[in-house]
Amino acid sequence: MTGKWEDVAAEKRARIENSIPQEWRIQQQPAGDSVFDYPAKSGILTAGELAITESSASELVTKLARGGAEIRRGDRSILQESCISTPTGKTEPFVSPTIPILLAAEVDGIQVNCCLEFFPEAAIAQAKELDQYFETYKKPVGPLHGLPISLKDQLRIKGLETSMGYVSWVGKYDTDESVLVTLLRKAGAVFYTKTSVPQTLMVCETVNNIIGRTLNPRNKNWSCGGSSGGEGAMVGIRGGVIGVGTDIGGSIRVPSAFNFLYGIRPSHGRLPYAKMANSMEGQETVHSVVGPIAHSAADLRLFLTSVLGEEPWKYDSKVVPMPWRLSEEEKIQDKILSSGLTLGIYSCDGVVLPHPPVLRGIEIVKSVLEQHKHTVIPWTPHRHDFGHTLVNAIYTSDGCTDVNENIRASGEPPIPNIKDLLNPANKKIDMNQLWDTHLQKWAFQNEYLEKWREAEERLGKELDAIIAPITATAAIRHDQFRYYGYASVVNLLDFTSVVVPVAFADKSLDVKNPNFKPLNELDGLVQAEYDPEAYHGAPIAIQVIGRRLSEERTLAIAEEIGRLMGNSTTP
Amino acid sequence: MTGKWEDVAAEKRARIENSIPQEWRIQQQPAGDSVFDYPAKSGILTAGELAITESSASELVTKLARGGAEIRRGDRSILQESCISTPTGKTEPFVSPTIPILLAAEVDGIQVNCCLEFFPEAAIAQAKELDQYFETYKKPVGPLHGLPISLKDQLRIKGLETSMGYVSWVGKYDTDESVLVTLLRKAGAVFYTKTSVPQTLMVCETVNNIIGRTLNPRNKNWSCGGSSGGEGAMVGIRGGVIGVGTDIGGSIRVPSAFNFLYGIRPSHGRLPYAKMANSMEGQETVHSVVGPIAHSAADLRLFLTSVLGEEPWKYDSKVVPMPWRLSEEEKIQDKILSSGLTLGIYSCDGVVLPHPPVLRGIEIVKSVLEQHKHTVIPWTPHRHDFGHTLVNAIYTSDGCTDVNENIRASGEPPIPNIKDLLNPANKKIDMNQLWDTHLQKWAFQNEYLEKWREAEERLGKELDAIIAPITATAAIRHDQFRYYGYASVVNLLDFTSVVVPVAFADKSLDVKNPNFKPLNELDGLVQAEYDPEAYHGAPIAIQVIGRRLSEERTLAIAEEIGRLMGNSTTP
Repeated sequence: MTGKWEDVAAEKRARIENSIPQEWRIQQQPAGDSVFDYPAKSGILTAGELAITESSASELVTKLARGGAEIRRGDRSILQESCISTPTGKTEPFVSPTIPILLAAEVDGIQVNCCLEFFPEAAIAQAKELDQYFETYKKPVGPLHGLPISLKDQLRIKGLETSMGYVSWVGKYDTDESVLVTLLRKAGAVFYTKTSVPQTLMVCETVNNIIGRTLNPRNKNWSCGGSSGGEGAMVGIRGGVIGVGTDIGGSIRVPSAFNFLYGIRPSHGRLPYAKMANSMEGQETVHSVVGPIAHSAADLRLFLTSVLGEEPWKYDSKVVPMPWRLSEEEKIQDKILSSGLTLGIYSCDGVVLPHPPVLRGIEIVKSVLEQHKHTVIPWTPHRHDFGHTLVNAIYTSDGCTDVNENIRASGEPPIPNIKDLLNPANKKIDMNQLWDTHLQKWAFQNEYLEKWREAEERLGKELDAIIAPITATAAIRHDQFRYYGYASVVNLLDFTSVVVPVAFADKSLDVKNPNFKPLNELDGLVQAEYDPEAYHGAPIAIQVIGRRLSEERTLAIAEEIGRLMGNSTTP
Repeated sequence: MTGKWEDVAAEKRARIENSIPQEWRIQQQPAGDSVFDYPAKSGILTAGELAITESSASELVTKLARGGAEIRRGDRSILQESCISTPTGKTEPFVSPTIPILLAAEVDGIQVNCCLEFFPEAAIAQAKELDQYFETYKKPVGPLHGLPISLKDQLRIKGLETSMGYVSWVGKYDTDESVLVTLLRKAGAVFYTKTSVPQTLMVCETVNNIIGRTLNPRNKNWSCGGSSGGEGAMVGIRGGVIGVGTDIGGSIRVPSAFNFLYGIRPSHGRLPYAKMANSMEGQETVHSVVGPIAHSAADLRLFLTSVLGEEPWKYDSKVVPMPWRLSEEEKIQDKILSSGLTLGIYSCDGVVLPHPPVLRGIEIVKSVLEQHKHTVIPWTPHRHDFGHTLVNAIYTSDGCTDVNENIRASGEPPIPNIKDLLNPANKKIDMNQLWDTHLQKWAFQNEYLEKWREAEERLGKELDAIIAPITATAAIRHDQFRYYGYASVVNLLDFTSVVVPVAFADKSLDVKNPNFKPLNELDGLVQAEYDPEAYHGAPIAIQVIGRRLSEERTLAIAEEIGRLMGNSTTP
């Protein structure tokens, strides 16, 4: 990198701007705080196009598997008759992957500001190759044939930059590809954008010194969440159908929650992380994991089954050789039809009390489950104060050497959101202290398993999952994210967690708690942020927590909850 | 600990001595270098008793599952008519678990010197409880009902000491039980001894300042291997049927090899390590793993299936929720019956050339496999020099602080075998250096997977496993173990590895290599140790290496090789 950091960032911004073809740019910025309805209301998309953007990934791949797409740049007629016969001999309409690309351009145009890389030409070339394949072999290349997938800017594609939200990384072009990108490509996915992240990745909002802040399409005063915030915003406004995020302390789940989306944090070792960029690369005490964000549990499953179908364990040594276990999923489905599920629930972790909308979200889920004959029992969060403190110590175990070096390399300032992270009191620990930390973590995980077993012994049956808040707040106002514990203790446990969107904050229902007494200073600060007016309409979500590597079961439970809530496919 | 270390050790030795009941002690020490035939030749066991000690674990549990055992201390008539009817209505003879207990006492009496704890009374009490259970419920408590299992002195049992080979640990009595002990107990196993380990565990021989050196029953001039050397010796002379060892750099596999036994190093996360003692506890860059040592692949499988049947992942967060996958085993069995297996093979890792007996062992296996229509292709060891250097650096990443503190706590001297480990040049690394080490390890693992995939692409079929030496030597002479790379690179890769006994060194066949030119100083030193006369009769083994968490497949392949070699059940 040469030159002042401001110049480097400005040059990168200009390149992002120029990546949007002229004919796709919108001339008039929409007014108001929300741009959420802009794609539908502005008339920039036809009814047919809108129908496509509102399709689920599962629907799209079904259509795409019937025939390739003729991609015509600048041509906005997306739906057309295919010349390719289906196995039944009938010609069918087919879907072009350009539509989300177009929409992505619009989204960026209306300053949701979620792209760090945008490469429609490469996407169209990739889609054409897939068409060619289909024409030659009369079958899709894989289960994601033609499906556009957006990537958090940690995933590497040859020839593109991976900025990681650091100015100092701008200008470094990738010479290799992340394993997940390779396998998604084999499965047929088309890539068109890499989305924004906060500087360091260690924040549940999305701000960096390259393109600034990524906004929540539903209300520009709210955060899109982070660190996979670009994905949250992009998929949230249906500029994408499935987005790929990562999570070391809530970074998949918080953007999912804040954008009324589903997101899964698989346990470490389920999906391949090899050759992705990362903050504090090589830190293995609490692993960052990669996973999808989408509009439904079914679309999350499509992603997982498609990636596992490529046998990622043959490419990435950290991946467990465990194909999708349909039998595990079916056990849950059988229970749903017979005895019902048995679920633990908690609304407060004993450290920070959630805002009234989140407490109501938990109550709604509890009530709906009980109405449908599922058993919901109270779960006592086991030493979450300890877990939260331990995981924070792990995040700073190198005294933030890695983070500081990456910031200083360009001279850019740290974003305000990482003030706690950069506290000089966070000293580098030594090897024997780290080993002691490992033992504390393991003991904590095993205690939690013991509590789970004890609950099952008391119940005389399996405890299928635990329902909990994922954040203390609904989609949060900017620069207010202070407490990560609802998410991060799950990372420390390495439990599987699926976020399910539940409802929206309502100023008439979610009044301030008049009896609130803070448990501690942080609790007071978090609760003080609540303002029924400012949060009116903000998405509320819960997380469904299963034991380690329980993706099949936990996702099936999340799907059932979404179904009961009426949130299973559309918001 | 109080007093001089010599006194502490002497007092511990006296307690071990006193734990052997007077009536079980032998009066006359056998003469000669080998005590291997002593149990059979001395007349201390009847023909019936000997038949029991030579039974496989699988045979024993089948008999034990038919009825409990009347344990009579001091009564040497072990085989008797049972009063308990079998399901077929026939009365059957049954087996008492005392026999291996008795034999253990003999073994210790003849100074193989393999026990750090010996507790026959507790074992007999446990066996009586199992009898009671059987009488009440008319069924076994679990798949290991009544089977004696010996434990390396890292596994904790309430009320006993875990010395770890450190004098400073003597006198610390365990207040909790290792998860594996709990689960084996649930499965019906009976515990009677905890076996010897080298000071630090970081050595492939077994020497400590508490009881001295554990010897190889086949020849007292040879090492029993290490660090699970007590298990190797104990099971080797059939003082036990299945022993539990651990392996961070060969510590299950080397004692298996040196005692003509089968041993499996499962991948990390397959079996529960929680609440076991360990050297350098909390070090997680290369995990120590726990696994069985036995006389056959079938007995290893019995152990694995029994433990997995107890769902260890509900007790230990590091265990992958993966029951025994019969389908994976059957895939190998199907191949054996149809196309045959496809196996890579190497005899030299490019760092140290094995001694002539080991090279012959590899040739024997290759030749037998090819005679039976299996495909054997050369495998090029990928950067084993790098892997071997990296794993050594990991072992000393705390500058040996942990090891030194445990040695110094009693004032005992370090054993001579850890001279390299304690080299003052081994400095503690810092957190960012560790993270870099993690990345190097991960990249190396992924490169190895890539080589495996490339081989499969060339072959157009699966490469089922790789066959390799497990040590550079046959059962080694004392204090000569210098090169750990054949074992430790597999630990770095976290691949599954099963040791198969192959043959015995033969001075007429295994002549010194006249054309040997050392690749490096270490290679020269290792080769110089070879002496056809001194090694005549020493056990030779190979390891079968499968990808991570491939226990079912790799064990099935090991079993087939053993079967073809005629070593599948008896030596």
